[in-house]
Amino acid sequence: MDPRVADLVRAVCPAVDGADALQRAGADESGLRGRADLVARPRTADEVAALMRLAHATPFHVTPRGAGTGRCGGAVPERGGVVLDLTAMDRILEIDEAEGIARAEPGVLLGDLQAACEARGLFFPPDPASAKECTVGGAVATSAGGLRGAKYGTMKHYVLALTVVLADGSVIRTGARTRKSVTGYDMTSLFVGSEGTLGVVVEATLRLVPLPPHAATLVAWFDDEASLERGIAAALRVRAVPRALEVVDAKALSAVAEFVAKPEWARAGLVLVECDGDEASCARELSMFAAALSGAGGADVRRADSASERDALWEARRRVSRAVRAKWPHRFAEDVCVPRTAFVQMLRDLRGIAARHGLDALGFGHAGDGNIHASVLMRTGDDGERARAAACVGDVFRRAIELGGTLTAEHGIAITKRDYLPLELSPETIAAHVAVKRALDPRGILNAGKVFPGT
Amino acid sequence: MDPRVADLVRAVCPAVDGADALQRAGADESGLRGRADLVARPRTADEVAALMRLAHATPFHVTPRGAGTGRCGGAVPERGGVVLDLTAMDRILEIDEAEGIARAEPGVLLGDLQAACEARGLFFPPDPASAKECTVGGAVATSAGGLRGAKYGTMKHYVLALTVVLADGSVIRTGARTRKSVTGYDMTSLFVGSEGTLGVVVEATLRLVPLPPHAATLVAWFDDEASLERGIAAALRVRAVPRALEVVDAKALSAVAEFVAKPEWARAGLVLVECDGDEASCARELSMFAAALSGAGGADVRRADSASERDALWEARRRVSRAVRAKWPHRFAEDVCVPRTAFVQMLRDLRGIAARHGLDALGFGHAGDGNIHASVLMRTGDDGERARAAACVGDVFRRAIELGGTLTAEHGIAITKRDYLPLELSPETIAAHVAVKRALDPRGILNAGKVFPGT
Repeated sequence: MDPRVADLVRAVCPAVDGADALQRAGADESGLRGRADLVARPRTADEVAALMRLAHATPFHVTPRGAGTGRCGGAVPERGGVVLDLTAMDRILEIDEAEGIARAEPGVLLGDLQAACEARGLFFPPDPASAKECTVGGAVATSAGGLRGAKYGTMKHYVLALTVVLADGSVIRTGARTRKSVTGYDMTSLFVGSEGTLGVVVEATLRLVPLPPHAATLVAWFDDEASLERGIAAALRVRAVPRALEVVDAKALSAVAEFVAKPEWARAGLVLVECDGDEASCARELSMFAAALSGAGGADVRRADSASERDALWEARRRVSRAVRAKWPHRFAEDVCVPRTAFVQMLRDLRGIAARHGLDALGFGHAGDGNIHASVLMRTGDDGERARAAACVGDVFRRAIELGGTLTAEHGIAITKRDYLPLELSPETIAAHVAVKRALDPRGILNAGKVFPGT
Repeated sequence: MDPRVADLVRAVCPAVDGADALQRAGADESGLRGRADLVARPRTADEVAALMRLAHATPFHVTPRGAGTGRCGGAVPERGGVVLDLTAMDRILEIDEAEGIARAEPGVLLGDLQAACEARGLFFPPDPASAKECTVGGAVATSAGGLRGAKYGTMKHYVLALTVVLADGSVIRTGARTRKSVTGYDMTSLFVGSEGTLGVVVEATLRLVPLPPHAATLVAWFDDEASLERGIAAALRVRAVPRALEVVDAKALSAVAEFVAKPEWARAGLVLVECDGDEASCARELSMFAAALSGAGGADVRRADSASERDALWEARRRVSRAVRAKWPHRFAEDVCVPRTAFVQMLRDLRGIAARHGLDALGFGHAGDGNIHASVLMRTGDDGERARAAACVGDVFRRAIELGGTLTAEHGIAITKRDYLPLELSPETIAAHVAVKRALDPRGILNAGKVFPGT
């Protein structure tokens, strides 16, 4: 980047270019790496706007960034330029208990926001696995989901209004501080999940719900695959909406069993159900799920109501990500989503597809909304094996889409999945997306080339 | 319209131009009237696409239309051209009970869809007052809301995927048949509520929820305004989410009392609460509301669980629209929305503003989401009174926005509110909307000039 331009950036916005800062700003959890020329760390929306006016006029590339917990390269500065690190804008601006609204800057940690709400008897449901480390801005940019999606939906269902700095530095307000509004287009939802390609969110107004008075959890273990499949299908047929309906398959459990040194957990599968609401309705709903899971062959069906006992039931599920990462450092971790009624089929086909490529695969995740975290496992991660695994991932995506599913439930497209986009979206559909991108970022400076190649 | 162009339209799509058909296609419930040159009545998405290709190439104006129940002129062909009547595309294509999904063409009546779902133990919550007459396509185009918004949200929370014919005739698919998807931008939400200005919805995939096992209703009557205000505020502080929290003010009740010849209903106000879910949780929640409303001075607090008794409790609320229309044929009926904690203030200010203009006003609606149906009443509707009432409406809008509210909760902007748009949206924000409109409809043929003047 031209040093004179870098000086102009520094004149409008706090910025650093030390080797460590540039190094950190070059990567995210995708394992990909780009080149940050300068890291801008604004403290105000005005500084963001000044930076974007400069970027638009010059032009230079800008890559917005929260905590960098994304898995698909959304925060990786692929084309160099300025990394716009929003973590210094970290104030919770307001929690209005009576209205049930929170306002936050993008750099607030999602977990801190959740805790601040819960301390006031309010509940902010979106709960990605990275909640303790990820930022509100990052969660908005990816429409983060997580465990409670089956009942509560994802970020997009909780963002009422945004303040957004557009690519040209103009500042707009989308949405309203009200439960209903149809004034103009739903621009709020357009920015939510846009992966930093359409604008920079500098403030989010979020909808809160009352903290449920009670929650109760149930776990059923399975000793053979056929029973597990029957159990999942039976749980999905229950006419109640649990806040979590989680599945862990045999291969993932084997990693957990090793990781926590509990060989008795190396079973064929686990289904976890959590309901919330009134104590009586939790009991009624869990009984329906218990009957369904036992009837399908579930063993050791256990229920818990207290926080500590519930926590114990969650343990095997909660450890999966780390255990899998520890056992298989070389793997592709994807987050396909299929119609819930195709969840069992997708889990089965995942293994079959991997086997055809001479590989192993495992699946776990949110059966309640059809979201499978599918890992294609490698032994060494050498070039040959990587190529086979990449081909396998492509086949997994193809199968998910054949089943009526989608490439990504919650991680996003960014870099790692953009080549697969035509599997899901027709050329006409992609063209409509690109037209919107060009309308809002005519010079192509915001996270250029992400999601849609050629932008 | 050039007769040769009309012949081309007829060649690609069924169309009529009889005087009756043109007359009907020229108006909606706004009372405004435009000029339909030809009414196209497609039966397939291909016919819609062919029509739009022709419109784009020629070009000519196209005004999409469902049942014409809109209140803001969204279906009025202001600039002439072809009215695209979608009511012949009226098939429910699928109700997948296991998945909890319905697929419908745009011309399906919303009430028919609701009934078909309920017959299968499933629930489609959006419930505008016009549900029995309005179409799915119209409900999508306005992101229709209604009585159950406080708990269940509005149309935009239930549309999973759309098939849309764009202005140039290209056909795109937005969203996915899954509970989660972040592939590309949330184009689904962009089209929902876009009032026919961005594309023509030819198929909608809708999310259903299990039919709640129980519902229970409570009504409290009030004999003075101060108690009513306290009652509304107290109900809004209850930490439970009812599916309806309705208010009718004294003036609206006076119309109902006259309309149904029940003078005992001419009281200072009414609050209705309806909860659903487990029977026990309904009872627990209604008790909280009953205590809050009685404590505030509510009289005759009555509860009902059976369908027929609940129906009786709803009667006064349900009759409001017709009673008000009968008593004041000349009025402006608006649907502002404010933060819930400002609902009481807005109700009070509505009357004060009207008094300053020498007029009466009344309010009723959905306190649970801050949505006030505010009527400014006229005696004769002569030009002078109309001008005063229009000025009054402007002041009501200004006050709603001062209170953190929005011009329209669910009716839309279309024609009747577009001049007020700058009260709510900044020039930069309007410019971003218009950029999206131009990107998707570069020739300005779809519902041209609606919502955003100059498009």
